[in-house]
Amino acid sequence: MLSYTPPLKDMRFVLEQVLDAPRMLAAMPAYAEVDTDLMRQVCGEAGRFAADVLFPLNAVGDRAGCRYEQGEVRTPPGFADAYRQYSAAGWPALACAPEHGGQGLPQVLNCVLQEMISSANHGWGMYPGLAHGAYACLAQYGSAELRERYLEKIVSGEWLATMCLTEPQAGSDLGLLRSRAEPAGDGRYAISGAKIFISGGEHDMTANIVHLVLARLPDAAAGSKGISLFLAPKWLPDGARNAIHCTGIEHKMGIRGSATCSMQFDGATGWLVGEPHRGLAAMFVMMNAARLQVAAQGLGIAETAWQNAEAYAHERLQGKAAACPAGQDGGRADPIARHAAVQRLLMTQRAYVEGGRMLAYWTGLALDCAEQHADPAMREQAHGHVSLLTPVLKAMLTEQGFAGASQALQVFGGHGYIAETGIEQYVRDARVAMIYEGSNEIQAVDLLLRKVLADGGARLDDWLALVRATAALERDGELAAPAQALAALAERTQAAVRAIAQAAAAQPALPYRVAPDMLRVTGHCGLAWMWLRAARAAIDGQAQDPAFHDAKRATAGYYFACVLPEVEQLFAVINNCLQQSAGGAGACFYPQGD
Amino acid sequence: MLSYTPPLKDMRFVLEQVLDAPRMLAAMPAYAEVDTDLMRQVCGEAGRFAADVLFPLNAVGDRAGCRYEQGEVRTPPGFADAYRQYSAAGWPALACAPEHGGQGLPQVLNCVLQEMISSANHGWGMYPGLAHGAYACLAQYGSAELRERYLEKIVSGEWLATMCLTEPQAGSDLGLLRSRAEPAGDGRYAISGAKIFISGGEHDMTANIVHLVLARLPDAAAGSKGISLFLAPKWLPDGARNAIHCTGIEHKMGIRGSATCSMQFDGATGWLVGEPHRGLAAMFVMMNAARLQVAAQGLGIAETAWQNAEAYAHERLQGKAAACPAGQDGGRADPIARHAAVQRLLMTQRAYVEGGRMLAYWTGLALDCAEQHADPAMREQAHGHVSLLTPVLKAMLTEQGFAGASQALQVFGGHGYIAETGIEQYVRDARVAMIYEGSNEIQAVDLLLRKVLADGGARLDDWLALVRATAALERDGELAAPAQALAALAERTQAAVRAIAQAAAAQPALPYRVAPDMLRVTGHCGLAWMWLRAARAAIDGQAQDPAFHDAKRATAGYYFACVLPEVEQLFAVINNCLQQSAGGAGACFYPQGD
Repeated sequence: MLSYTPPLKDMRFVLEQVLDAPRMLAAMPAYAEVDTDLMRQVCGEAGRFAADVLFPLNAVGDRAGCRYEQGEVRTPPGFADAYRQYSAAGWPALACAPEHGGQGLPQVLNCVLQEMISSANHGWGMYPGLAHGAYACLAQYGSAELRERYLEKIVSGEWLATMCLTEPQAGSDLGLLRSRAEPAGDGRYAISGAKIFISGGEHDMTANIVHLVLARLPDAAAGSKGISLFLAPKWLPDGARNAIHCTGIEHKMGIRGSATCSMQFDGATGWLVGEPHRGLAAMFVMMNAARLQVAAQGLGIAETAWQNAEAYAHERLQGKAAACPAGQDGGRADPIARHAAVQRLLMTQRAYVEGGRMLAYWTGLALDCAEQHADPAMREQAHGHVSLLTPVLKAMLTEQGFAGASQALQVFGGHGYIAETGIEQYVRDARVAMIYEGSNEIQAVDLLLRKVLADGGARLDDWLALVRATAALERDGELAAPAQALAALAERTQAAVRAIAQAAAAQPALPYRVAPDMLRVTGHCGLAWMWLRAARAAIDGQAQDPAFHDAKRATAGYYFACVLPEVEQLFAVINNCLQQSAGGAGACFYPQGD
Repeated sequence: MLSYTPPLKDMRFVLEQVLDAPRMLAAMPAYAEVDTDLMRQVCGEAGRFAADVLFPLNAVGDRAGCRYEQGEVRTPPGFADAYRQYSAAGWPALACAPEHGGQGLPQVLNCVLQEMISSANHGWGMYPGLAHGAYACLAQYGSAELRERYLEKIVSGEWLATMCLTEPQAGSDLGLLRSRAEPAGDGRYAISGAKIFISGGEHDMTANIVHLVLARLPDAAAGSKGISLFLAPKWLPDGARNAIHCTGIEHKMGIRGSATCSMQFDGATGWLVGEPHRGLAAMFVMMNAARLQVAAQGLGIAETAWQNAEAYAHERLQGKAAACPAGQDGGRADPIARHAAVQRLLMTQRAYVEGGRMLAYWTGLALDCAEQHADPAMREQAHGHVSLLTPVLKAMLTEQGFAGASQALQVFGGHGYIAETGIEQYVRDARVAMIYEGSNEIQAVDLLLRKVLADGGARLDDWLALVRATAALERDGELAAPAQALAALAERTQAAVRAIAQAAAAQPALPYRVAPDMLRVTGHCGLAWMWLRAARAAIDGQAQDPAFHDAKRATAGYYFACVLPEVEQLFAVINNCLQQSAGGAGACFYPQGD
């Protein structure tokens, strides 16, 4: 049986000691009142809700799954009630603007909330998961009428929202989508088409469901430039049922408590959101918010998996450990946490979870800065950092969600493979996050092609300047070695970008080939940066709570010694691909004649 | 819907062109008649059985699972009938000695059979999975009476066998086991205790089940030196039911068609196998056979996963590929197999599957050599190679079974996460193989501590001499660069072993800490060796079937460019641990004060 303890102390360490969030937020007029106490209070309440209400429903949701019957979907026992508590407590409104009924709290606290929800119950979290993105998209692109009619309902949690993109023939490539929207002449549109993989497309949690749907207008160009975005509610303002129906739900590997729906639109009434044919731009507001949230899912899953593996490793006695000769039972066997191989598994999880949390929250703060900083130049710079790190976090943290859950399962051994233990559900649940909201391969292309090469590396350089500045603070003393490693990594990363940009002129396929490696290299720049800052914060905070801060320093040391070296592999692959490319080989390195 | 095509052409390439198996077997009197035709015939028949009989039951087994009722276990529909066909065709007897009713065919063909069974139906394969190990163990350690009574029944497949080791408190550490065996005075023993995770402990496939059980005699020492091995059948020779009962089956993440039983022994009648208190030595005969078989499971799963991902990637059209501008549909979208990121996923799988097959079959041939070569010195040398590579193959190929299945799922995208597609079952099934028959962490310790450091690296050096000899053949010409990389890798591996051995004197925990890295380094020595040989065979065979051989060379190139660089990460970690160790830090690198 698993447990979940909200990691409040670790979160405080990150927010207060490493990132100095209260001071950063103080530079944003909207968050002038967000002080340390308020942040702690929100984290504490979110943690209580996640641990007390959501976590007990996690295994229930997996076992019961959703039931589909004649267009209706029944969510697992307890799910709808948990949602009522969630919206009653005002969680949907957390980071929404006060003028729309929101609490006006910073995005970084939303990151904390999302992490905890996913730690406790990934499947449940899928239902409210898209509400904030829908809110952001409507707030920015919705007409006054749509904003008036839908924003407050979404902010209050009274209605939930979906994102209807995928069609059977159009997944990663939305340009292939076929759903059509015919103008009715009165400002309304009749939407027709079939959508698949729609999370929360139908359920019994809210009285209405607000669908944001991609479709083509009659005069639309082919491809992604002919796609428009529409809002189509399950129930129309006049109380009539809209022609939108769930035709079935998927039987999935994991997140079985989440209803993944096939949706049929049969001339459903909808309203345009944003400009005609510019639907992808509007949808990307929603998508980018969703991608950061998916990163938090990976993080949350990795946290719970690690917590439980850690606890089990201290309980389970097997074999004498060479590392620590004094057996806890005075005799035959040590806790497996004393065995080096188990320590490697646990420390790798921990280095990614804690490092990933620092980088995710840093990015959450950058998002706040991008939205609310008093200085427009700071807003613009922060926006660049967020756009750079969003794909990195989405891919790295979802990979670690799956890998970390699998590592935790390994610590449990044969018991981990048994359903009742619960950890295998985390492995199954985690797997989907590497696919949805843009597969991790798409994230890699987004990062290298659109975020890095497109501006000649300027945005990356701007961010790496912050990284280098941290390293420069530690020229002497006990952190000199990791600081040097960090500075060298930044240097090598920039050199790799230059070499790729140069080679791409003759070999346009090359950046696509090395994009996955460059994404992880960039991620390690961020993780190493954060671990250096954490080590500094731990040294500075040493006097209070030495054991806690020693553990942070030990994990930082582990990250630099045993996790960061992945970059040696990545750079070697990149260099090999560059060389092959220079030799004229590998224009298409896939065997042709097979 | 998945499919499985036995990779007969690839297998022939490995057996005939890369490994020259017929010539190697000709040096073994027992296999004088095993020529190319016979090998092809066995492979073809095994493939037909796997594809036609076992594969169609794979999803059935996952969906139906096993049913437990009052001590009885019903296997999934079709499983028992498939087993009848399997034993009627003589497959259990394949690599058993003719004097016990076996077919006397080489172990390498057993590797082929095991790979195909696992490709087709991992869950089903668990039932006959331990029969060959039980046969080998009884043939070597059983009394004349036991051999007479049980060997032929096992060889004919009339009875199946189990391995009863694990107890709730004794998993990786068998020294903790508590089951007891009281001598009855007439050569029989009364065995009592509870065993868990017993694959095929109860089922409806055979009339009798032969349990090989570890238990302690009354005068046994504590720990692993006080463990004896017993044979205890479900039905006694006089027709009475033995006091062995299945008390339940596990609900597992995967291999749901396999009955994983809790077994209760209540004074069950058994006979000693081998000497008192030397049970682990006898059990290890069975265990080593099982470990190679588990390696073949990982390989088989990775093969089917890759086949299906490959086929899907050629069907599914999404997006224009930068790599290959000519779209197959003349228009909007290319098959995803033309996208670089998908190619990376597919090629990584392929490099591991084909490379892993070469190394596994090479080890199968070495096992034949160890058992049957005319020259005792050759037998001893081959035995050393098998003992060295068994833990490497078990860990590397089961990791790739899971990673490869997950990579295949990624190629399927959202569709891969849906149960009906079938690939997610392969991910769930594959996961267990990293745990059972000695977790992969145990394999790493077995390799570095027992197989490498224990003899001062002599066995490793002896094997690496073969590796170097291959590299030395390619000093010039188009394979000079990979040959150089291989020679350098062998050199660095030996240097790392020397450094670890030296540091271990002062830091006994160090080898345990770097054991997982050294296992993968050793695995890459083997894979790089095999890919160099494959590239040579492909060049030599080029004239016949150029497309096939070009693909082999392309995959070899991919292995050296994009897979082998993992060793850069591994050596960096090893060096960092050595340095920490030299600095006196990290005697216990796990945070103590947390």
